[in-house]
Amino acid sequence: MQRKSNELLAGYCQFRPRFGRVRENLEGVIRALRQVRADLIVLPELPFTGYHFRDRSEALALAEDPRDSDTVAALARLCKRKRMHLVTGFAERRRDRVFNSALLIGPQGLRHVYRKLHLFKDEKSCFDPGDIDLSVQTVNDFRIGMMVCFDWAFPEVARTLALKGAQLLCHPANLVLAHCQQAMLTRSLENAVYAVTANRTGADRRPHGVLRFTGGSQITAPGGRLLHRAPAARAKIHVTALDMSAAGNKWLTPRNHLLRDRRPEFYLA
Amino acid sequence: MQRKSNELLAGYCQFRPRFGRVRENLEGVIRALRQVRADLIVLPELPFTGYHFRDRSEALALAEDPRDSDTVAALARLCKRKRMHLVTGFAERRRDRVFNSALLIGPQGLRHVYRKLHLFKDEKSCFDPGDIDLSVQTVNDFRIGMMVCFDWAFPEVARTLALKGAQLLCHPANLVLAHCQQAMLTRSLENAVYAVTANRTGADRRPHGVLRFTGGSQITAPGGRLLHRAPAARAKIHVTALDMSAAGNKWLTPRNHLLRDRRPEFYLA
Repeated sequence: MQRKSNELLAGYCQFRPRFGRVRENLEGVIRALRQVRADLIVLPELPFTGYHFRDRSEALALAEDPRDSDTVAALARLCKRKRMHLVTGFAERRRDRVFNSALLIGPQGLRHVYRKLHLFKDEKSCFDPGDIDLSVQTVNDFRIGMMVCFDWAFPEVARTLALKGAQLLCHPANLVLAHCQQAMLTRSLENAVYAVTANRTGADRRPHGVLRFTGGSQITAPGGRLLHRAPAARAKIHVTALDMSAAGNKWLTPRNHLLRDRRPEFYLA
Repeated sequence: MQRKSNELLAGYCQFRPRFGRVRENLEGVIRALRQVRADLIVLPELPFTGYHFRDRSEALALAEDPRDSDTVAALARLCKRKRMHLVTGFAERRRDRVFNSALLIGPQGLRHVYRKLHLFKDEKSCFDPGDIDLSVQTVNDFRIGMMVCFDWAFPEVARTLALKGAQLLCHPANLVLAHCQQAMLTRSLENAVYAVTANRTGADRRPHGVLRFTGGSQITAPGGRLLHRAPAARAKIHVTALDMSAAGNKWLTPRNHLLRDRRPEFYLA
């Protein structure tokens, strides 16, 4: 795929992680991405550890400090070899705390950590809530923001990232409900941003219960357009050229700017 | 239709106003609602004057002060006779200012005025932007909020009304784009509220241009469910019993409260 100067080759890798098999999942991702040409690939939430932790101690045991992590080092080598960036979910250990995080990794290594602000259901028993600001990073001179899974339900997340300049929302997810895909169309529409939601497939079958994930990874565009949606149950990698200038233009009509038309003095925070 | 104590009979009246024919449009609405049994009916935006004003002076000439308006008086008589409430769009004159407003009218007369905060396209040449707070009113002990048409594009509007306690968003509209219906599903989902969007049909054919409106009035429910959608081009009245207790429950899951899980310290206002 050829890229123009205003384009970013972005996509996702949807697959089925095996719970607890960090090295096997990592090797699967590296193998899957070997033939892919992209500037930026988004992986699902918690794609190496799996999702359905029994409790906090199990999450802590599988989590890693991304600044001292074999997993991150291997992903950084992949990024360097392929001259690409990755946004990936990550079980992040930080001393005695553990976060459901997303990492931005590039050819030079770890670039940014985002810690999920809105924990879903039993994640509240396993993870600490995110404690650092939503922020925007540059990839190939384009501005990307990171959010994780259930953050989709809070319009303030995508809005905050857009107000900070994000053109593309990178959204690792482990979806069990059917609502997110629809809502992300609205997030793309109301903020005039692209969004790549990378979901996983399969189930985490644990002694304390089974959780099934719903696939349907997708790429949405300004105007609320669905560019692509993955099947529900199959592994899938999809990369597409995004015209990032479209996400710089916040004029929904010649007289309506989606951000500047806001009336924050009338909004409750 | 029988009503239980937790139910509100709510709906909309979708029709084709004729530009500038205030009395004719009013009589059409009164005639259309004669046989309807409802607690609350939502009418479109600017349903009596029509929408496509040439300029501000034309809007001013057709607008009325709702506190001294034959139109409002006739609607109040209708509400009294039928023991119902109306939310209707209204070209509101206030001394030398003119607003694209929504009115709540009940058996006792005018109860509340909301002035559209987010003006669409050439409305900016015809109307003053809204200048009073979003607020919540009670109808049959249930809490309703009002928003007008393009307010849909700003998630902060529905969010603010939900944070102030609204269970039902009453949403007069004159839609020309195709985005709103989808976005209102998301508004209902992310806030666990009902929403009644009342759109108009037909076109305003004026010397300065033609504007076509897209019908498709709809009623959405907590969970992002579409309860009903009207056809694009035909007049339609639809009333349904809304279980308002569903809009009091903000628990999307047993551990996720859509409003209390917010992390406003991380949001840009």
